[in-house]
Amino acid sequence: MFELQLEPVQEGCDSHTSASGCTIFLGYTSNLISSGVRESIRYLAQHRMVDVIVTTAGGIEEDFIKCLAPTYLGEFSLKGKELRQQGINRIGNLLVPNDNYCKFEDWLMPILDQMVLEQKTEGTHWTPSKMIHRLGKEINNPDSVYYWAYKNDIPVFSPALTDGSLGDMIYFHSYKNPGLVLDIVEDIRHLNSKAVFAETTGMIILGGGLVKHHIANANLMRNGADFAVFVNTGQEFDGSDSGARPDEAISWGKIRMDATPVKVYADASIVFPLLVAETFAHNASRLIKEKKSD
Amino acid sequence: MFELQLEPVQEGCDSHTSASGCTIFLGYTSNLISSGVRESIRYLAQHRMVDVIVTTAGGIEEDFIKCLAPTYLGEFSLKGKELRQQGINRIGNLLVPNDNYCKFEDWLMPILDQMVLEQKTEGTHWTPSKMIHRLGKEINNPDSVYYWAYKNDIPVFSPALTDGSLGDMIYFHSYKNPGLVLDIVEDIRHLNSKAVFAETTGMIILGGGLVKHHIANANLMRNGADFAVFVNTGQEFDGSDSGARPDEAISWGKIRMDATPVKVYADASIVFPLLVAETFAHNASRLIKEKKSD
Amino acid sequence: MFELQLEPVQEGCDSHTSASGCTIFLGYTSNLISSGVRESIRYLAQHRMVDVIVTTAGGIEEDFIKCLAPTYLGEFSLKGKELRQQGINRIGNLLVPNDNYCKFEDWLMPILDQMVLEQKTEGTHWTPSKMIHRLGKEINNPDSVYYWAYKNDIPVFSPALTDGSLGDMIYFHSYKNPGLVLDIVEDIRHLNSKAVFAETTGMIILGGGLVKHHIANANLMRNGADFAVFVNTGQEFDGSDSGARPDEAISWGKIRMDATPVKVYADASIVFPLLVAETFAHNASRLIKEKKSD
Amino acid sequence: MFELQLEPVQEGCDSHTSASGCTIFLGYTSNLISSGVRESIRYLAQHRMVDVIVTTAGGIEEDFIKCLAPTYLGEFSLKGKELRQQGINRIGNLLVPNDNYCKFEDWLMPILDQMVLEQKTEGTHWTPSKMIHRLGKEINNPDSVYYWAYKNDIPVFSPALTDGSLGDMIYFHSYKNPGLVLDIVEDIRHLNSKAVFAETTGMIILGGGLVKHHIANANLMRNGADFAVFVNTGQEFDGSDSGARPDEAISWGKIRMDATPVKVYADASIVFPLLVAETFAHNASRLIKEKKSD
Repeated sequence: MFELQLEPVQEGCDSHTSASGCTIFLGYTSNLISSGVRESIRYLAQHRMVDVIVTTAGGIEEDFIKCLAPTYLGEFSLKGKELRQQGINRIGNLLVPNDNYCKFEDWLMPILDQMVLEQKTEGTHWTPSKMIHRLGKEINNPDSVYYWAYKNDIPVFSPALTDGSLGDMIYFHSYKNPGLVLDIVEDIRHLNSKAVFAETTGMIILGGGLVKHHIANANLMRNGADFAVFVNTGQEFDGSDSGARPDEAISWGKIRMDATPVKVYADASIVFPLLVAETFAHNASRLIKEKKSD
Repeated sequence: MFELQLEPVQEGCDSHTSASGCTIFLGYTSNLISSGVRESIRYLAQHRMVDVIVTTAGGIEEDFIKCLAPTYLGEFSLKGKELRQQGINRIGNLLVPNDNYCKFEDWLMPILDQMVLEQKTEGTHWTPSKMIHRLGKEINNPDSVYYWAYKNDIPVFSPALTDGSLGDMIYFHSYKNPGLVLDIVEDIRHLNSKAVFAETTGMIILGGGLVKHHIANANLMRNGADFAVFVNTGQEFDGSDSGARPDEAISWGKIRMDATPVKVYADASIVFPLLVAETFAHNASRLIKEKKSD
Repeated sequence: MFELQLEPVQEGCDSHTSASGCTIFLGYTSNLISSGVRESIRYLAQHRMVDVIVTTAGGIEEDFIKCLAPTYLGEFSLKGKELRQQGINRIGNLLVPNDNYCKFEDWLMPILDQMVLEQKTEGTHWTPSKMIHRLGKEINNPDSVYYWAYKNDIPVFSPALTDGSLGDMIYFHSYKNPGLVLDIVEDIRHLNSKAVFAETTGMIILGGGLVKHHIANANLMRNGADFAVFVNTGQEFDGSDSGARPDEAISWGKIRMDATPVKVYADASIVFPLLVAETFAHNASRLIKEKKSD
Repeated sequence: MFELQLEPVQEGCDSHTSASGCTIFLGYTSNLISSGVRESIRYLAQHRMVDVIVTTAGGIEEDFIKCLAPTYLGEFSLKGKELRQQGINRIGNLLVPNDNYCKFEDWLMPILDQMVLEQKTEGTHWTPSKMIHRLGKEINNPDSVYYWAYKNDIPVFSPALTDGSLGDMIYFHSYKNPGLVLDIVEDIRHLNSKAVFAETTGMIILGGGLVKHHIANANLMRNGADFAVFVNTGQEFDGSDSGARPDEAISWGKIRMDATPVKVYADASIVFPLLVAETFAHNASRLIKEKKSD
C-alpha cells in the first residue's frame, strides 16, 4: 500500500523536475543514522535524490563517528551499569565504545580551531548548516551522508547542533579557544527560503520531534507541502507533534488541503529501506539522468 | 507507586538544599504548555521549585500566546481541511485560531526591533536563553511560566528556538530589520555549567525528543544525574532516544550508576499534575521556606 | 477530564437504577487481577456496583491463587532463564512461584472430581460461568473477587476458560477422571440475555482482546450500550479490535449513536483505582443504599 | 534481520520434518483475516506449511463471510454514526456491510440445524474445532483458509468461538432449535496433545490476546516451544500478556531456555507477507515435496 501511496510524491516530483524541480525535504532522527538506515540516506544524498536535509545533532555526529570507528550490534536488555563500567554506550540495540568519541574529538578539535580562526580573521558567520557543510568536506569519505551533502550542495539543517557530542566538544573547546558563534537566525532564513521559492515540495520525515516539526514549519511558509510521507511510531492521543497525523498539519497549512499525505505507522528501520528500494532506487536511472541534465 | 518512587528525588534534593541545593532540571515538550499542564509548570516556576528549564520553541511561544488570547478545547478528529478554511490550527485536541498568532506578532515585532537595536548599539550577544528571559520580562503576566522564570532567575534553554512561530516572526522580521544573531554556543556553556557545578542534580522530563536528550546530555558533563524521572509514552523498540529507558542513560553516564531512576509510561497530562500535587505541592510550605532562607 | 466524562455513566445509571436498573458490564484482562487493581475490582463486586463480569481464564484463576499464596513484586527486566531455573513465573513486573500453582492444583482437583460427579449423577450442564460461580463459593474468602460475585449473584463469563492454568488442570484431570463437559453455548445465551433485557447498559472495559470484544458484542444484541468507558493502551493503526476507538463500535451498533463514550489511553493500573475512587467509591453510600432497597 | 532470525525456525523444522516433523502452531487475531494477510495464511494452510491454527471467532467467521461477499477498503476516520445509518460496519480501515452478515446467516443456519440433528441422532460431541472443520468442508471454496485446513486436516482451535457473529447466530438459532452443545474440554485435550507429542515445535503468533496465550500455554505442557516468532505492536509496560516479550514466556517454560525467540515490533499486515515470502514461499518447492513424501 505505502509503495503505491508514495508514488504520487515520486511522480509528482518527476513531472515538475524537468521544468523547475520539486524540492524534497528529508528529515530523520539520530537513531536512524546509528542504524543501518544510514546507508539508504547516504544513497539518496549521493545521487542528489533529496534537496534539503534536517536532522538532530546526533544525526550529524554519528555519521562522522562511523567513519572513524564502527558501531556494534548489541541488545536492548544489556545492563547500563555494566556497559558504563566497560566504557560502552548503548543506543537502542546498538553499542558505541567511548573510544569512538575520543577519535571524534581528535578529529574535530583542529577543525574547531580553524573555524574560530576564520571567524576572527575572515569574519565567517558560522551557522549549524555551514558547520555541517565544512565537516562534510573535512571527513572526505564516501561512506558519509554529509560528505555527499557537501559534494552535491544539499543544505543540512540542525538548529540544535549543540545538543550532542558536537555540543560537548564545542563546550570543551570553548575553554581552550573561546569565541565561536553559531547563529541560528541565518539558518532559519535559509531553510524557509528553500520552501518559499520551491515550485513544489515534498516532505519525507522519519521519526518525530524537532525534525518533523522543523520541516513542516518551513513548509508553512509556502502554505503547505504538496506531498508528505511520515514514517514513525508516535500516536496522537498524547497531543504530541511527533504523533500527530498529517491531517493536523493540514489545519496549520503545513500540508496543502488538496494533498494526499501518508503516515506509515512503523519503525523506519524496517520500512524505509523498502520504500527507497521501490521508489528512488527503482527509478534511479531516470532520476539520475534528469538531475545530470539540469 | 510512582509517588513513592518520586520521593527520593524530593527528599534527596531536600537534604542537600540547605547546604548547596539540588539542581532540578525540568524539561517538557510544547504540547504540555498547550495543555493544562502549563499551570503545574507555572506553579513550579513561580515557587522556584525547579532550577533549570529546557523546552522547545513551541513550549516557549504557546505560553506567551496564551497570555494574549485563549486556546480552545476541540477534538482529535476535527478535519484539517475544514479547520484550515476557518483559520483554526489544531494541536492534538486543542484549537488555536490564526488570530492568536497575529496578536503574538503584534506583541513580538517591537521587541525584536529593540533586540536588534541593543545588539547594534550595546553589543548584546543574544542567545535563546537571553531572548526568553527578555520575553518573560516583557510579557509581565503572572499566568506566564516565563514571567516567573524571569522573576526568579530560572534559566530557560531552547537551542532550536527558531523552530516555531518565533522562528517565523524572526524570519519575517529579518527582511525588515536584518542582523539579529542568536548564538547557541554561549547557551550550551551556560547549560552545561549548571550541571557541572551542581552539588546534586535531578531530572524531570516530560515527553521526548530534544528536551529529553538535552537535559540528559548536560548531566553527562557531571557523570550523571543523581535523580531522574521520565514521563512519556515512547517505547524502546524503535531505538529512539525518546523511548529509551533510563537504563540506557546509565550506560552513557547521563544518570549515575547508583541512582534509582523512574520511567512513568503515561501521558504527562494525566500524571504530572498528580505528581506535582503529591510531591512539590504537598511539601510546598517546607520547600518555599527553605528557598526563601537561601 | 475522565472523571467528568465518566459521570454520565454513573449518573445515567443512577437515574435508572431506582426504576429498573442500569446493567453495568465490567471487563478486564488477567494482568489486572495479577496487579493491585484486583482490590478495586473486588470492591465493586463486594458492593454489587457492577452487574456482569467478563474476563479471561487468567483473570479467574489468579484471583483464587492469590487466596492460596502471595504474588511478588519483581522487575520487567528479570531474565527468563534464571527465573525458570528458580521456578518463578513472571507476569510483567510481578512474580508467581510454581508452588502457587501446585497449591491451586491441590485445591482444584477435588472440586473437578465433584463437578464430574454432579454431571454424571445429577445431569449438571456445566458452563464456564457455572464453574466460576462454584469456585467462588468454594474459595469462601472475602479477598476473592469471585467469592463476592458468588455471594451477590453477579454472573462472570469467560468463554475460553480452558486457556490458562485452569485448562492445564482440566487437561490433567481428564486423564484421571474423564468426561467433564464445559459448554459455551448456554453461556452466550445467558450473557446476551443480560444485555437484551436490560433497561440501559454501561460498559467499563479495561484492556483489550476477548474481554473488550465479548462485552461489546453482547451489547450489539440490544443495538448498543448506553454508556461506555474503555481504558487501554491499544492503538487503532494496526486494525485491532483492542485498539479500536469507541467510534468503531458505534458503526457496529455496539454503542448507541447518541452515546458519549470515552477512551482513556492509559495503563489501567494507573487510572482505574482513581476512577473507582472518584465515581463508585465517592458515591458509595448512595449506591449501596439504593442497591439494598432493590 | 527478522528474515535471518526466522530461518532457524524454518531450518530447524526442515531438518526434523523428514524424520519426525516439527509442529508449527500459527496464531492470529481476527483483523488479519479481515485484512489482506488472509491470503498469506490461506497459502500456508493450502500447502500444509503449518500444523495447528489458533484464532478468535472473528478470525473464523470473517474468512467465510469473505467467500460470500466482499470486504471494502475505507478509512480509519469514517464516522461511526454515519456508517451505522448506512448499515456498514468498520474494522480498522476496512468496511463490511450488514448484508454480508445476512448472507452468513443464510449460509450458517441450515448447518446449525444439521449439527443439532447429528448431536441428537448420532451423539456427535461438538467442540469449536470440530465445528470449524465442518464449516471448512461446507464452504467448499479454495479462497477459504478453513477449507484448506479441512482438506489438509489442520486442526483449528478457537475456544471462545461464541465471541462474534458465530455466537450471535448460535444465540438466535438456539431459540428456534435449542440444544447445541459446544464443549471446550475436549478441545484443550486435543490442542495440548499436539504440543505434548510433537518432536519439536515452533510458534508463529501474529497479534496478542487469546491467540498468543493459548498457543504458548499449550507449549508449556511440553516444557516450551523450540522456536518462537511473535509479531505484534504490544508493549510490556502495562503488564499485558499481549505485550510481553518472549523472555517472559521462557520464565513460564512456554519457550525453551535454549531457544532464540524473536519479537517483531510491527503491524503484521506490513511484515507477515514479507516473512512468508522470504521463508515459506522461498523454500516452497522443498517444503511441499517433503510434505508429500511423508
